[in-house]
Amino acid sequence: MNPYPQHLEEAIEWLSKFGKEKDDGVTRLVFSRAWNEAQHALKDWMETLGLLVSFDSVGNLFGRLPAREEDAPTILVGSHVDTVRSGGKYDGAYGILAALLAVAALKKEYGAPKLNLEVVSLCEEEGSRFPLACLGSGLMTGLYESRDLKGLTDSEGMKLEDAMKMSGFSLPGGEYTVRTDIDAFIEIHIEQGPALEKLRKQIGIVQAIVGQKRYQVTVTGEYNHAGTASMHWRKDALMGAAEMICALYESMGNREDQLVATVGQLFVKPNIPNVIPGRVVFSVDARHPSEETLESFCRQFSRQFLEISADRGLGTEIKMCHEVHPVQMNQALIETVQDICVKREISYQLMNSGAGHDSQLFAKVYPTALLFVPSQGGISHSPLEYTPVKDLETGLDVLKECLHQLAY
Amino acid sequence: MNPYPQHLEEAIEWLSKFGKEKDDGVTRLVFSRAWNEAQHALKDWMETLGLLVSFDSVGNLFGRLPAREEDAPTILVGSHVDTVRSGGKYDGAYGILAALLAVAALKKEYGAPKLNLEVVSLCEEEGSRFPLACLGSGLMTGLYESRDLKGLTDSEGMKLEDAMKMSGFSLPGGEYTVRTDIDAFIEIHIEQGPALEKLRKQIGIVQAIVGQKRYQVTVTGEYNHAGTASMHWRKDALMGAAEMICALYESMGNREDQLVATVGQLFVKPNIPNVIPGRVVFSVDARHPSEETLESFCRQFSRQFLEISADRGLGTEIKMCHEVHPVQMNQALIETVQDICVKREISYQLMNSGAGHDSQLFAKVYPTALLFVPSQGGISHSPLEYTPVKDLETGLDVLKECLHQLAY
Repeated sequence: MNPYPQHLEEAIEWLSKFGKEKDDGVTRLVFSRAWNEAQHALKDWMETLGLLVSFDSVGNLFGRLPAREEDAPTILVGSHVDTVRSGGKYDGAYGILAALLAVAALKKEYGAPKLNLEVVSLCEEEGSRFPLACLGSGLMTGLYESRDLKGLTDSEGMKLEDAMKMSGFSLPGGEYTVRTDIDAFIEIHIEQGPALEKLRKQIGIVQAIVGQKRYQVTVTGEYNHAGTASMHWRKDALMGAAEMICALYESMGNREDQLVATVGQLFVKPNIPNVIPGRVVFSVDARHPSEETLESFCRQFSRQFLEISADRGLGTEIKMCHEVHPVQMNQALIETVQDICVKREISYQLMNSGAGHDSQLFAKVYPTALLFVPSQGGISHSPLEYTPVKDLETGLDVLKECLHQLAY
Repeated sequence: MNPYPQHLEEAIEWLSKFGKEKDDGVTRLVFSRAWNEAQHALKDWMETLGLLVSFDSVGNLFGRLPAREEDAPTILVGSHVDTVRSGGKYDGAYGILAALLAVAALKKEYGAPKLNLEVVSLCEEEGSRFPLACLGSGLMTGLYESRDLKGLTDSEGMKLEDAMKMSGFSLPGGEYTVRTDIDAFIEIHIEQGPALEKLRKQIGIVQAIVGQKRYQVTVTGEYNHAGTASMHWRKDALMGAAEMICALYESMGNREDQLVATVGQLFVKPNIPNVIPGRVVFSVDARHPSEETLESFCRQFSRQFLEISADRGLGTEIKMCHEVHPVQMNQALIETVQDICVKREISYQLMNSGAGHDSQLFAKVYPTALLFVPSQGGISHSPLEYTPVKDLETGLDVLKECLHQLAY
């Protein structure tokens, strides 16, 4: 009796057992015990399927269906095996399992391909254990170097290098040898947003992963007694910050593009009901697929913030603390997927990804495609994450056909 | 050699030694060692001045200059001896010391008065150790009852009753016997706000201590990913809260009355830069000398908050969590002080007190006057609290003349 899952739904349940918690959440942090068990279970399954299996030195797992001829290039397909703390069953996992089932089915139906077909279970993407995301794809693509990672520790003070060693892996001594045989990277993933569900589309074809700029805005006023300071004399940092936040969102009100901006974090000092706030620190996270549009929007709100600040006699400092440049997916691959959807009468949406993915790093080095299936309620990073089986199956069909066209 | 201070400036330094800290801050929490030493030093000084000295059962200290005739009514004058943590030298202390020096000078110049003149050093006003302010005046006026105080503990878990006992005091077994001989209560205090300094006035004559309503506003939206949720679909609790705060302050922009309102406290959940806030809780503290105006203002902003909330598809709950009714000071006493200032060419300002004081409780039971001297920079509850000596002396002169007119 085959102990491995035959169908996608089964496969999702099977992988979710590694790191499953009481409330149905999954926690599979990189190089943890649950993570080790998951990677080795995937390795065994890949071997059972007749793939050539290997780990690289940093913990990425590969299962290769070799091409008929030596020296053929490779189509790489997969996603990440790690999860956030108390995440869902689909994020990352779906991309590995769909890749594996697609390659297994192609092998069974068509035998050896013209190009190597290689499934990858990337070691880390979420940045949930160590303060750096996309470890697997970052090292594979040579965009991260060992020296960038050497100081990193998790919340319990364990070094990344030590955690790797305990799992049998290590940072490359010199440079990681970046592969030159890869013709394309294909990733399928849950959307983690509500667009496909709201638009009633089965497949999302990503055109770009948006650029992101994150700022820390510090507004300084004067502490004062809420009872004795007349309104006219106040320098209220929260009054100023609230006006800035309103101005930020108002300036976006009429835009029809995909710009998003969020004030997600805000701290007040001293944060006491009867003391006028002397200091407020808040975040602004802005995202757009065009670097230029993003730049110009950020310049605009920064100028507005400083005007409000000056009008109120406050001091304001705006510091950029995080930046990700937008990345375009490969146009030829986008059209391939589009054609498949049209021919099969599968509804699709050309869209941007507001969240980051391994594809963001691969796209800088290899032609890359990123496909989405709907996320119910847009919910992700939660035990409530869910995608109906029929949507998962549609994604698998599209992926399989895409790999067939590229590799056979 | 007399070990007691002769002049006001000296007296302020003398009393500030009890509880003085390295950074020049004063911490004299009720029933603490520093507090005990201060009350007993004041008692000894009062005795040296030839006053009849007594403690009541709860720790208020009285020094009485008896009237020529028995059964004469009493003019009570003083303030509180306790301080906040790391407070200044003037808050409370100035009112006791000015009273003591005024009564001593009157005794020396004019002998026994027609009415009893009685200095009080009230045990507690700040609410800094136990979670209840105005302990001394509350008990004296019968506005607080023993049963209200019985459960109270300080931050180290010590019960109010036990702390009292360690200082030799106790909660009254039955009711505290409220005195019926008091004709007036007079308090002089630092302003703790910037008005007198800004208006270049020497004396503030308080007409009313403002009423205060404090609310907790809870805005509930939907957590979401800052990258994947389009602006149109968001239910951002902080976006709503910022709009409410702006609306609150905008609605006050054109008012010329003494209304003040403050959002001093605000908490965001989950308070992470890349998550759309699902919940915001903030405080609104509103104060005005007229109950009616305050009521109508609070009704108005509450209505506005609920409108904003509904427009944005948010849920909003507005809960009043603290209320103080406005209290009028005695009109005849106000005019007495006003006349003194006019005759002596002392500049004065009729004003309201935005902060609470013992006078707030006394005014409910006895005719009460509350006088202010300027606070440099409006700073109080801080080691930086400061009033120039000439302003302190002016206050003492006015107080002395007022007591002279009332008691002789």
